[in-house]
Amino acid sequence: MNSLNFEHELNLQHTSSHNSNLLDPEEFRRQGHMIIDFLADYYADIEKYPVRSQVEPGYLHKRLPKSTPHDPEPIKTILQDVQDHIVPGITHWQSPNFFAYFQCSSSIAGFLGEMLCTGFNVVGFNWIASPVATELETIVMDWLGEMLNLPKSFLFSGNGGGVIQGTTCEAILCTMVAARDQMLCQIGRENAGKLVVYGSDQTHSALQKAAHIAGIHPKNFRAIKTTKSTSFALSPDSLRSTICADIEAGLVPLYLCATVGTTSTTAVDPLGSLCDVAKDYGLWVHVDAAYAGSACICPEFRQFMDGIEAANSLSLNAHKWLFTPLDCCCLWVKDPSALIKSLSTNPEFLRNKASDSKQVVDYKDWQITLSRRFRALKLWFVLRSYGVANLKNFMRSHVEMAKLFEGLVAMDKRFEIVVPRNFAMICFRVLPSTMGRGAYQNGKVVDNGQKLLKEEITTANELNQKLLESMNASGRVYMTHTVLEDMYVIRFAVGASLVEERHVIMAWKVVQEHATAILSNN
Amino acid sequence: MNSLNFEHELNLQHTSSHNSNLLDPEEFRRQGHMIIDFLADYYADIEKYPVRSQVEPGYLHKRLPKSTPHDPEPIKTILQDVQDHIVPGITHWQSPNFFAYFQCSSSIAGFLGEMLCTGFNVVGFNWIASPVATELETIVMDWLGEMLNLPKSFLFSGNGGGVIQGTTCEAILCTMVAARDQMLCQIGRENAGKLVVYGSDQTHSALQKAAHIAGIHPKNFRAIKTTKSTSFALSPDSLRSTICADIEAGLVPLYLCATVGTTSTTAVDPLGSLCDVAKDYGLWVHVDAAYAGSACICPEFRQFMDGIEAANSLSLNAHKWLFTPLDCCCLWVKDPSALIKSLSTNPEFLRNKASDSKQVVDYKDWQITLSRRFRALKLWFVLRSYGVANLKNFMRSHVEMAKLFEGLVAMDKRFEIVVPRNFAMICFRVLPSTMGRGAYQNGKVVDNGQKLLKEEITTANELNQKLLESMNASGRVYMTHTVLEDMYVIRFAVGASLVEERHVIMAWKVVQEHATAILSNN
Repeated sequence: MNSLNFEHELNLQHTSSHNSNLLDPEEFRRQGHMIIDFLADYYADIEKYPVRSQVEPGYLHKRLPKSTPHDPEPIKTILQDVQDHIVPGITHWQSPNFFAYFQCSSSIAGFLGEMLCTGFNVVGFNWIASPVATELETIVMDWLGEMLNLPKSFLFSGNGGGVIQGTTCEAILCTMVAARDQMLCQIGRENAGKLVVYGSDQTHSALQKAAHIAGIHPKNFRAIKTTKSTSFALSPDSLRSTICADIEAGLVPLYLCATVGTTSTTAVDPLGSLCDVAKDYGLWVHVDAAYAGSACICPEFRQFMDGIEAANSLSLNAHKWLFTPLDCCCLWVKDPSALIKSLSTNPEFLRNKASDSKQVVDYKDWQITLSRRFRALKLWFVLRSYGVANLKNFMRSHVEMAKLFEGLVAMDKRFEIVVPRNFAMICFRVLPSTMGRGAYQNGKVVDNGQKLLKEEITTANELNQKLLESMNASGRVYMTHTVLEDMYVIRFAVGASLVEERHVIMAWKVVQEHATAILSNN
Repeated sequence: MNSLNFEHELNLQHTSSHNSNLLDPEEFRRQGHMIIDFLADYYADIEKYPVRSQVEPGYLHKRLPKSTPHDPEPIKTILQDVQDHIVPGITHWQSPNFFAYFQCSSSIAGFLGEMLCTGFNVVGFNWIASPVATELETIVMDWLGEMLNLPKSFLFSGNGGGVIQGTTCEAILCTMVAARDQMLCQIGRENAGKLVVYGSDQTHSALQKAAHIAGIHPKNFRAIKTTKSTSFALSPDSLRSTICADIEAGLVPLYLCATVGTTSTTAVDPLGSLCDVAKDYGLWVHVDAAYAGSACICPEFRQFMDGIEAANSLSLNAHKWLFTPLDCCCLWVKDPSALIKSLSTNPEFLRNKASDSKQVVDYKDWQITLSRRFRALKLWFVLRSYGVANLKNFMRSHVEMAKLFEGLVAMDKRFEIVVPRNFAMICFRVLPSTMGRGAYQNGKVVDNGQKLLKEEITTANELNQKLLESMNASGRVYMTHTVLEDMYVIRFAVGASLVEERHVIMAWKVVQEHATAILSNN
């Protein structure tokens, strides 16, 4: 695993990195081809590596020199070090045996688009700095918006608009700041300490972090409790009563983040009824569809976004399940002027005729950062290179594989599925031999009418924790966990670009083998 | 320019993008080589393109289809569209005739590192998610910190530490939030509205934007006036008197952003004396060395950072002048725990043994976003592939070329250099024939003792604006401008990776030709 198998591809001519020409076209060509071959070989070999890196903390410090070399080193030497020292420390997100977190699924087309982005290396802060970076982004955001059947009010063609940000964290922070400033205009800045932000206890931690950065009082962040009875979706009644209590207390409701496909269980908050509540109290509603949004290009999943027409903004991560390399978070807003009012700056050194004419989009005013990469290229490459039909098929095949895994779990009485599957992720756990299925019901611990001892819950949790750690330590698969109403649960997310049925079946075998071994030792 | 000149490199075999395998190694190899050849040809031809794109707003909407294709399109077709429709809309930041803004200088090594980052496509939010992404970052940040001769207190080896962020905007926002939270712990959150942020009128707009996002009251943002008499550096006396007035008014000084190499003129704020003032009043001092920080690896420029030992944090953009593709902002802090206290989140789905052991760095707690790319790879490639000696030489050659341009300007009596040159950027302007050199002195408009009429100032400004627009419209060079004490000034920044002396000499000829034409018409 540590030897270079791309040796034969190497041009044996001595490297000319001494060349003072940093972008010499022929040297670029020679070294570029070397890296392509390196990566092609990496993908060919990817199943040979332990999925989760097995290194110990601090491993790399022992292997690398203490300081930057004084003289140039040939690319061949550096690539050998990548193979010997970098690859062992990688947790292989592109491995077909990676079922952890949510996938970060790349593709050839996405990679090519990113290469062009890096090759052109333009900084598209405003239109004039590279007109196509802005124009292609407005076009692909409308394309993708239409694929999702978004209301026209979210598209440029309907006076809304989309922007590509790095991550959902940024999308939430930007929209929250816009909402905050709109509200403070109405109620006066002296009331900033009264603003309240709402999510559920299943909402991504990005919401709380954004609220904190934006200066929302930590006491005014609401993570409304969800239960298994609603499959961990946020209940509109709970939202309403929480809002009412806050208003009663003299606070000002500001912002709701609803989720389509939560991180723990892929729960879907009921957008329509939540937006109804939010409308009654004037909240900005952001919909975080980071993971599941991409699936909504398939009609059979689009229902999960019903009600979106009443929201103010929506984001999804094309780098999760739309085969675009990290990072690519697509954010649509109905009212771009709210973002622009909060986030625009106009330093003299960026002034130009096009911006002054107000005929162009200057994306610097839609985001936190000034500099921005030409991310639209990779999304455009993905959309064109695969086409709508294939993209749907890719996602459907992942869902089918998740169903296959679900079926396998269901057939083994030692296991249970903890929440119903919505997309391509299964939450399951193994049960201690003393405990039957259905030990937990509706958020309460019951076993044939009898309360389980706290001890038994702990036993079950420790068992699953041990099972997960044992599987991950084997290097054959990588899965992660969550905790639901004190239950430790294993998450099995299908979505790697290289995954096939055989990997899912093998993963289930790994689960069974490790469970058998652990149960027999217990 | 619109025809493909890489046709001969194309594999004529029909593209198999219908292949459902999104990361098929052999298909990856085939298409990857195509893009490398495309980009190598792009660099070979780059001087043929107009530097600043000449397209009109909306040009691309007319050329692309209205929606995503249903079926896959071959990569060959997409690349032809890149050549025909994307390239004309690019402002060529990698062109040797690009002298605008500050450069975003790439390199072969930086490109290779970014390719590997995209190829591995790992999400390094915490250590376990890909240990090497974290460990390599801690190592290269210490390497670069040592190259800059930073005090050990900023390095991991001295209990500080570095992190790679996307942009300076993020670095400033993160450190400001850390400073804010520390201060609010002391003075109570109810005093949030009293916090004051300081910079100069030359500080980058990123500071004001960060303050706004972090909820600093807009009235509490201070852009302290600078003058030509101090070469637009922030005066410690002005800072002290501003702070005193704020304290007098019952406000709480929080955060100072000092700059090494301002955007308009590359002015250098005197760090030592500013930190002395800041220390007296307990401010957090952040040093923004976005552009000029990289040059400080050369001993002859390191003096500009003198006094850094008393600052709290420092950032520089390796994507500006350290040959690393966008984005790569290096941030060092003396007290990582301040960042972590403000920015950490601990959702259950990310919990793991390594993090719980507190033996590892989890970079998610050092930045705004959760997801993060493996940016350390490209910086590591750049440092190793060129070595310290060459990197210094690259920057010195840019400075020499800037000196050459400076000399050429000085020899033509129709022009003047507006502020002294510190690094590789010249601020100059052409004078109306009625106006002699030195018309502006020490911030006051004087002409042999006589005040110039406002009309004459306007004439001079219009002349320079016309000159700049005329040069940029020619497509032969791209420069940008700034305004200093009502003077419209042209900025000439040297730093493109492909730039050679001949480009600088040619750029000066372009300036002279266009000036001659405009002056003769005036």
